[in-house]
Amino acid sequence: MINIGIDVGGTNLKAGVVDSEGRILHTKKIPLGPWQDGDYFMNQLCTLAEEAVKEAGFDKSEVSSVGMGFPGAVNDETGVLTYITNIPVSGYPLREKFQQRWNVPVHLGNDANCAALGEYYAGAGRGSRSLVVVTLGTGVGGGIVLDGKILAGSNGTGGEVGHIVIVPNGDQCNCGRKGCWERYASATALKRMTVEAMNAHPESLMWELTGGDASKAEGYTPFDAARQGDAAGAEVCRTYIDYVALGAANLVNIFQPEVLAFGGGVSAQEDLMEPLAKRIAEEDFARNAGVASVKVTRCSLGNDAGIIGAALLGK
Amino acid sequence: MINIGIDVGGTNLKAGVVDSEGRILHTKKIPLGPWQDGDYFMNQLCTLAEEAVKEAGFDKSEVSSVGMGFPGAVNDETGVLTYITNIPVSGYPLREKFQQRWNVPVHLGNDANCAALGEYYAGAGRGSRSLVVVTLGTGVGGGIVLDGKILAGSNGTGGEVGHIVIVPNGDQCNCGRKGCWERYASATALKRMTVEAMNAHPESLMWELTGGDASKAEGYTPFDAARQGDAAGAEVCRTYIDYVALGAANLVNIFQPEVLAFGGGVSAQEDLMEPLAKRIAEEDFARNAGVASVKVTRCSLGNDAGIIGAALLGK
Repeated sequence: MINIGIDVGGTNLKAGVVDSEGRILHTKKIPLGPWQDGDYFMNQLCTLAEEAVKEAGFDKSEVSSVGMGFPGAVNDETGVLTYITNIPVSGYPLREKFQQRWNVPVHLGNDANCAALGEYYAGAGRGSRSLVVVTLGTGVGGGIVLDGKILAGSNGTGGEVGHIVIVPNGDQCNCGRKGCWERYASATALKRMTVEAMNAHPESLMWELTGGDASKAEGYTPFDAARQGDAAGAEVCRTYIDYVALGAANLVNIFQPEVLAFGGGVSAQEDLMEPLAKRIAEEDFARNAGVASVKVTRCSLGNDAGIIGAALLGK
Repeated sequence: MINIGIDVGGTNLKAGVVDSEGRILHTKKIPLGPWQDGDYFMNQLCTLAEEAVKEAGFDKSEVSSVGMGFPGAVNDETGVLTYITNIPVSGYPLREKFQQRWNVPVHLGNDANCAALGEYYAGAGRGSRSLVVVTLGTGVGGGIVLDGKILAGSNGTGGEVGHIVIVPNGDQCNCGRKGCWERYASATALKRMTVEAMNAHPESLMWELTGGDASKAEGYTPFDAARQGDAAGAEVCRTYIDYVALGAANLVNIFQPEVLAFGGGVSAQEDLMEPLAKRIAEEDFARNAGVASVKVTRCSLGNDAGIIGAALLGK
């Protein structure tokens, strides 16, 4: 038997045919296209799933479930789309409509939560019972999986780990709060800190690395500079890692998961994980209790995690 | 059938005979006494449970389970005490030893988690599927119950909601971190803020309310003063409520529980809950998604919560 996972993005719909171990056997991508209405959207999703199955050489009767991950809040109990960012489909009973066309078990999830579920079963969390995923990208996202169950909250909007305030009256966040972790631990924040450090340090190697143009600074710039002995670059890395560790240790003290995995662009930095894991360990409430401590690691599935997790929503 | 719940404190052991609805039918308390060893401790617990059953007019055969809540980390899967604050019993296989004397299902839990479980089934969370409890006492404690299951973490030390840092490099906490929520939202913190405000405001009514002795300031002092129009008192209340709301909204954004309940001495303040609930609602990530928002309320079981929750650990 196979499962279908669909990652619903603002631009593309990407489906994967996934086996019960979480391996992707085939993928198919189509553009979301101009928005029409809920029924049109449902038919896009259904046709995409059917064609992916066919292209992979399977029959629809071999499909155990179709799972979909959305950028927003969904209700997997009722099968209704609650609130999807940039897609005006609030309140659409997707499962009911989908099943009128193809009567297969249908599951709905949040995309970040699906990615965490994928990592739980087939990636960084494989073999563990609890996993917290933190994604260091444009924002700070994440997902929490406990005993195989996604922590979605009673209203489908739980797991917003980037929107815990760590600096009272700090930087204004898009969510409306001030001082959210996302404002200090995202790739966006890292770039902002880098530019600030460059402006404060005309002697920094970071100027050379960006060809004298601070607008070309990237998240890797301070790491590259620090590796070559640049003090200002090293200071940016230290400050950034302290902020990431602060919020991550908050999550550890709440969840004490078996595994804490970092994803997103910044997590690829080779000089990040070791000092980060060390800082988290220093702030782990459990460190004095003589108990097992969390394993800090990288996510391992990359962009496939969302499809795999969506496919395994019904597991 | 009945369940026995035992609340293990540093001074007393208190057992309750509890029915399946979480009602306490009888309680019995004995002193912990001078420490001897694990077996002596186990025999104390077992004798206490047996006597409570007898005094309540039941027979041991009518007992479904015996649950115990400890001030520390336990492992309910193995039945071993991991690390108990102030009781040198780490590694003691309590369930196995207890059952050699009385072969009944035995469950172990953390005391704060047991209190949350009690509130979940029989108190503030009754009828809901997810509950976060925050206790505003000497420290800030808490417990999280999701679908009837305590979030204890993979090593039994999860749910330490007081030890999330909300002020980078803030006040030194006993846990080793700096700037923990507990340092700003506990009754201890409220008293500290009150004394600071009194020293800064010789004109404050709070001096009169404490008979001119700042060491007599209590958590209710600024609330009493504010009610009588004292500006300094009102400012302490506002600052304190902001800190409580900050950490509470962090928990809401992570868990989106159906119910968030406050316990501990400070929660009894009549002027606390309304402004606190308002501030939390303002910082709730879900407020823009058109979904149900968390119900903010008081814990309702008081000191009985721990016994009731321990009794229902096996439910």
